[in-house]
Amino acid sequence: MSLLQKIQQQRHDLTHRAFDRHIRLGVTGLSGSGKTAFITSLVHQLTQGDEPANLPFFDVVREQRYLGGKLAAQLPDMPRFPLEQNLQYLQQQPPQWPPSTVGSSRLGLQLRYKAAAGLRARLQSHSELALDIIDYPGEWLLDLPLLEMSYRQWCEFSWQLFNREHRTTLAQPFLQQLQDVDLTNDGELYVQQLTDSYKQLLQQYHDLPGAYLNQPGRLLVPGQLAGAPMLQLFPLLPQQAEQNTALVAKLTQHYDSYRKHVIKPFYRRYFAALDRQVILVDCLSALNAGYAATQELQQALRLILQSFNYGPSSLLSRLFKPQISKVLFAASKADHATPEQHKALTLLLQQLLQQPLKHSQYQAATTEAMAIAAIRASDSGFVRVDGLAQPCISGTGLAQQALTYFPGEVPATVPDRALFAAHKFDFIPLRPLPWQDGQALRHVRMDHVLQFLLGDKLR
Amino acid sequence: MSLLQKIQQQRHDLTHRAFDRHIRLGVTGLSGSGKTAFITSLVHQLTQGDEPANLPFFDVVREQRYLGGKLAAQLPDMPRFPLEQNLQYLQQQPPQWPPSTVGSSRLGLQLRYKAAAGLRARLQSHSELALDIIDYPGEWLLDLPLLEMSYRQWCEFSWQLFNREHRTTLAQPFLQQLQDVDLTNDGELYVQQLTDSYKQLLQQYHDLPGAYLNQPGRLLVPGQLAGAPMLQLFPLLPQQAEQNTALVAKLTQHYDSYRKHVIKPFYRRYFAALDRQVILVDCLSALNAGYAATQELQQALRLILQSFNYGPSSLLSRLFKPQISKVLFAASKADHATPEQHKALTLLLQQLLQQPLKHSQYQAATTEAMAIAAIRASDSGFVRVDGLAQPCISGTGLAQQALTYFPGEVPATVPDRALFAAHKFDFIPLRPLPWQDGQALRHVRMDHVLQFLLGDKLR
Repeated sequence: MSLLQKIQQQRHDLTHRAFDRHIRLGVTGLSGSGKTAFITSLVHQLTQGDEPANLPFFDVVREQRYLGGKLAAQLPDMPRFPLEQNLQYLQQQPPQWPPSTVGSSRLGLQLRYKAAAGLRARLQSHSELALDIIDYPGEWLLDLPLLEMSYRQWCEFSWQLFNREHRTTLAQPFLQQLQDVDLTNDGELYVQQLTDSYKQLLQQYHDLPGAYLNQPGRLLVPGQLAGAPMLQLFPLLPQQAEQNTALVAKLTQHYDSYRKHVIKPFYRRYFAALDRQVILVDCLSALNAGYAATQELQQALRLILQSFNYGPSSLLSRLFKPQISKVLFAASKADHATPEQHKALTLLLQQLLQQPLKHSQYQAATTEAMAIAAIRASDSGFVRVDGLAQPCISGTGLAQQALTYFPGEVPATVPDRALFAAHKFDFIPLRPLPWQDGQALRHVRMDHVLQFLLGDKLR
Repeated sequence: MSLLQKIQQQRHDLTHRAFDRHIRLGVTGLSGSGKTAFITSLVHQLTQGDEPANLPFFDVVREQRYLGGKLAAQLPDMPRFPLEQNLQYLQQQPPQWPPSTVGSSRLGLQLRYKAAAGLRARLQSHSELALDIIDYPGEWLLDLPLLEMSYRQWCEFSWQLFNREHRTTLAQPFLQQLQDVDLTNDGELYVQQLTDSYKQLLQQYHDLPGAYLNQPGRLLVPGQLAGAPMLQLFPLLPQQAEQNTALVAKLTQHYDSYRKHVIKPFYRRYFAALDRQVILVDCLSALNAGYAATQELQQALRLILQSFNYGPSSLLSRLFKPQISKVLFAASKADHATPEQHKALTLLLQQLLQQPLKHSQYQAATTEAMAIAAIRASDSGFVRVDGLAQPCISGTGLAQQALTYFPGEVPATVPDRALFAAHKFDFIPLRPLPWQDGQALRHVRMDHVLQFLLGDKLR
């Protein structure tokens, strides 16, 4: 039985054992969006931070019905989310952000509470809810559109992307290499050499702020697929991909294998088993990176939305049977702006998603957008400027400099090119606030997050 | 369907399609034994080197019935053996050995030949044989004995090993850490910290010539299992493992999970599907490393033999259903000694295996031992010393120095401690001989290897 089958089996077992007393929560987001901090905080709030003062909008806690949460036994052969190690990073002097995880991991919790009313409240001294948190890279969701594109269409798509202003310079060496390509050569070494060049380009894009759409998602982190033929894959120039030659045939074959052996199994095995989903978006970094970056973030989010927009005719519902009932889009790192800007940040995120979520067409799932900070990096306050109270935040920069400043306004709509030309956004990255074990982890709106994701299951 | 299931499925399909016209050849050996050079050479001999002058003892070639071999299409989602890249290393100036592979890989060949006689020779212009070469680390076979040991017995076994003369110094820091261990503490961070220390020790052993028995086999190369709880595993001191405490319970649980989720699936899915097996052994390096190293090589080989000694009552036949019909033990790098020493090298290998293989009790499989060089690193000849012809070899050392010398005698039996005390073996590592594409790859006895492994299927 493969690892993935085991997940399904375990899900099946638990469903039978305890009906809906089990929730599988997916947490994702593009690289750098704050998945690690989010899960670390979520688990800590549920196990250590369950005081009404810390989580005032989480009903079960405010109503003092929450009895506590503890880590559940883990599947021995699945990567485990390194919670304890992450908490250690936060306690270092100076505090460090925990490192990003690679690939997927899992952490299970057992939550205990008193039912609010009804039969269960009368019959049982307490109720339990099993919560499984599954962390996976948002880049895996960006592969979904490949299922609806042919190899030729993907080449077209890729080179439109690489020709954009923030990407075109880096793409030049690979472009030149392709212009001299021998389309009749499908030799192993030749294809590998071109793939290595493309991989190098993808790595450079990965390190470039504001380049979100890097496909295929597994080329940079192949895991057990390292050396598999289907990962010899790169986009030829569109006019090259039109031709019927040996190299085009080979790449088309690898592309089709990748769709069959990577993308579809991910949806069938991981995604179809999730009940609820959090998608983290770092809007402020995109604003810092400029117009083209913000446009690309918008495009990436719309592609990710395809994974949740499973109306009757959607690709996803035709291929798989997802059952995600709640989706939370969270603008992360909101504490890098002042509190009165959070409303604008939420509106910006909604516009990036291209629709007010409240009136969305997502009939299958309830969606919500919020501005949050899973682990606080700043305190907020006011300074007097010219006799007026000016909002500000204070924290510690990455170079350990103490900072108290107004980071600027967050635009409530996606700024156009003219605004970016006139104004440089500069939301400064901060270290986490100092924290010691035994204290609650300070946050922004994690209680709202918990209420949205779990509140209805803890009544 | 998992990758491993696919292998089985593919095997099943091919069996049905072509009855016994398909052979799955396993190639293994402990780290550094020469798997990469062996497979590179084997494939090159079958695709480019099929001249009687190059392979005089390979019947199908000598009888001029061999029509050629070519690479077959690969499973798109399985790591592929990097043949072409390896051949490039050999053509560099100066020539380089290709790098070791990590984990498992596969390469398929389609061989075409004329049948020697019988119905097939009369009916068909040619016959075909599909050859699948599966490369996997010998360390995976060293995990088999864990199936018959409890966690406590494994602790006993491990610390007996670490107390040997060539290992004890490196083990001291970990030993001291264990002496202060808190057996009641099974906290995540504590167990991980101790595992990290053990991993560091294993890495040091891995780099130490003559330390072969490093368990568990996946701790250093976890692949997709990185972060899985069962890889938090290390041997406590034997007296500690006797106690019923939280830490002992946790490690026992991880140990049992490792056996269930790693060792058994490997045997069931990989090993049980193989038809023939090559095991490479670098005896000369063990002699260089001294008495304790040679003893440990002997112990490791005997443990590996358990995987092939599947009489009616063996563990393997009880758990799995292996069908390996031929096993070749090859003393690799034989050209680092002079040719008249090869007989002694073969005898030494047989004694390391503790029995003359010809009269072995392996009823299920035919076994053979040979001294070989998959890719030649030396020419052999004679120099005149005091008027007598003295055998010698000439080649290029790793530091590019030209060398012509007599490397010394190879003992035909495993030397005792006294001999090692009196005599230092020094078989000098050499670079491969210069080679250009289009030439046959020079070797020692690869024709015997091919005849033993494939001859009966190419009649």
